Amino acid sequence: MQPRPLIALLTDFGTGDTFAGVMKGVIASICNEARIIDLTHAISAQNVREGAFHLDRSIPYFPEGSIFVCIVDPGVGTSRRPIAVQAGQFRFVAPDNGLLTPVLDRHPRLRCRLLSDTRYHLPTPSSTFHGRDIFCPVAAHLAAGVPFERIGPEVDPATCTRVRMFGSEPLENGNGWKGEVVSIDHFGNVVTSIEASLLVQHAVWSVSAGTARALRVVATYGEVEPGAALAYAGSSGMIEIAVRNGNAARELLIGAGSPVCIRKA
Amino acid sequence: MQPRPLIALLTDFGTGDTFAGVMKGVIASICNEARIIDLTHAISAQNVREGAFHLDRSIPYFPEGSIFVCIVDPGVGTSRRPIAVQAGQFRFVAPDNGLLTPVLDRHPRLRCRLLSDTRYHLPTPSSTFHGRDIFCPVAAHLAAGVPFERIGPEVDPATCTRVRMFGSEPLENGNGWKGEVVSIDHFGNVVTSIEASLLVQHAVWSVSAGTARALRVVATYGEVEPGAALAYAGSSGMIEIAVRNGNAARELLIGAGSPVCIRKA
Amino acid sequence: MQPRPLIALLTDFGTGDTFAGVMKGVIASICNEARIIDLTHAISAQNVREGAFHLDRSIPYFPEGSIFVCIVDPGVGTSRRPIAVQAGQFRFVAPDNGLLTPVLDRHPRLRCRLLSDTRYHLPTPSSTFHGRDIFCPVAAHLAAGVPFERIGPEVDPATCTRVRMFGSEPLENGNGWKGEVVSIDHFGNVVTSIEASLLVQHAVWSVSAGTARALRVVATYGEVEPGAALAYAGSSGMIEIAVRNGNAARELLIGAGSPVCIRKA
Repeated sequence: MQPRPLIALLTDFGTGDTFAGVMKGVIASICNEARIIDLTHAISAQNVREGAFHLDRSIPYFPEGSIFVCIVDPGVGTSRRPIAVQAGQFRFVAPDNGLLTPVLDRHPRLRCRLLSDTRYHLPTPSSTFHGRDIFCPVAAHLAAGVPFERIGPEVDPATCTRVRMFGSEPLENGNGWKGEVVSIDHFGNVVTSIEASLLVQHAVWSVSAGTARALRVVATYGEVEPGAALAYAGSSGMIEIAVRNGNAARELLIGAGSPVCIRKA
Repeated sequence: MQPRPLIALLTDFGTGDTFAGVMKGVIASICNEARIIDLTHAISAQNVREGAFHLDRSIPYFPEGSIFVCIVDPGVGTSRRPIAVQAGQFRFVAPDNGLLTPVLDRHPRLRCRLLSDTRYHLPTPSSTFHGRDIFCPVAAHLAAGVPFERIGPEVDPATCTRVRMFGSEPLENGNGWKGEVVSIDHFGNVVTSIEASLLVQHAVWSVSAGTARALRVVATYGEVEPGAALAYAGSSGMIEIAVRNGNAARELLIGAGSPVCIRKA
Repeated sequence: MQPRPLIALLTDFGTGDTFAGVMKGVIASICNEARIIDLTHAISAQNVREGAFHLDRSIPYFPEGSIFVCIVDPGVGTSRRPIAVQAGQFRFVAPDNGLLTPVLDRHPRLRCRLLSDTRYHLPTPSSTFHGRDIFCPVAAHLAAGVPFERIGPEVDPATCTRVRMFGSEPLENGNGWKGEVVSIDHFGNVVTSIEASLLVQHAVWSVSAGTARALRVVATYGEVEPGAALAYAGSSGMIEIAVRNGNAARELLIGAGSPVCIRKA
């Protein structure tokens, strides 16, 4: 038996409207067997880069065969293309606006299609809610078994839009890295753009951001006192900054985009 | 094989408590096969009209056979009746307080029942949480195959409570329509009570609301510059007002209930 | 056929990040058949007592066989133990920090295991997101049929951490009870720590809390005028305080932790 197809939703729609609920109704109408998981609806409004970051970090935790519907779409109703991408065992439907940058960059041999076959859309799509009228219907048809090749003509992945992703660069003296704050989570923990894997070769590092100077990079919260700040290899794979049992963003005056610097101590 | 029954939830419970989660536990306890979709829990507290509007706009996107549990219930614990309605291929359970007004108005031949058979309730229902104790249990029993006729005695739909729905009326000079703002979405886009279908016969219309004067009705966001305001036939089927890549409600000082006026330009 | 296993999630993660979504991806990767229900992600950050209270009140509404993943975990990354508990027909995975206090206290013959068998974890767990890396993987393996005994060595329940639960004590003169406010719901209704069952033997009670003096305990909202305050046996099984069609917490200046007093009138 085929496993039940899984559709994961990543949007900037929030949960204060019927947008996400209606999209699920559409998916269930087309493919009753599809399992739907809300990856998140809390991407900051129209923030394509943030959406791309969180998508990238989340994919490995989903089963092979998953279909991701990704909608952060400031250009809905303009000429930006709606596309689908098949990369390894995962498929993605999204506007071609850079939201899939990490997928496009990581997979040398992916396939890409334009969502132009209106048989797989809702009839008479609106010009402002393609999530309901185009992206979710296509994802649901894919989940129902429609072959990837059928949903529209091939698109050269080289022509797809990329955005500059969050990253880090070496300090001038080669003594560390500088980057920026990617996002602040529900607990006030700070996710930076500096990959934790960069730090393996050196034992002692110190981090500066906001009002925090020379925070030690430690292994876990438990190595500092309650109320103290720390830096650590976060669950996102990036260096993160927290205050044990506190709110780092608030207490250290750090916001999205704040500069971060990591030095060999 | 019967398709898996679908129960959609529309409430004003928010997602900050265990209310919605507990209701899902109740449904799963009675009908393990039922698929549950959160249509929305974000109806404004006790706002029956807003709930009725969003229900009405959402029904067509759900598969035939869906059961809607609708709970915006300022009268819980008073003598207002709990009812179920069968209208075409859809069923609804709700308090009889006007929340089902659009369903009652659109379907000439619907059937209605009083939820009085306590075999389909939880034992010893509370007086304040009928969603958990009455509405979801009845919906789950319906999903599990209990015939509609079994859940309680027939009710004459003519006796059911209606609320005045959002609407529009012609301007005195016949040169357009006036209406009001129904809701503001997550992006600050403004949904009005004026149906987009009213505008078909005339090419050029202009909209006034809040500080916006003579906004042109255009087809899509892309027809105006970023930062500019526009009016358009929204995905809700109503005239909507937005600021491209901005927040119309905030920038144009428009709130729920604000008057809206549309004129032939 | 075995019923579809159900995993309920109770956390303090909020819904503004990808935490809950990623955990669902992990569960689906390990046990595609598992049904996942969000009991709540809105426990106040790191508030173990509040989590324990809401868990306790919610369990009876879930079907037998349900597995609860409970994560309010200020000590993640310290030496606090990750455990699983089997109590009657329910299983729980959680940090051993008191979150399971009511489960431990109510079930004389429960079994408890340490989550130390890394075959049932994700490879290379982070030190800060055990929900994704340990708790959900173990729950999903249990849902997939791994025997409870297999997930790690036995733990003596007597050694598990308990927290002081919300409660009430008799007034000095034996004329009633004093307690505290446990939580405020989405509508501003106030849940107290005084069990409604304490009030059965006496007909007339009056409640004081915040600016409210001598509120009558009535059966339902409908017994007072709109805008008036009331106390009643809430759906939580506790005495609750509300303002009919209003917001009691705001109008009566009541917050979490506020003292509450109930007297024979």
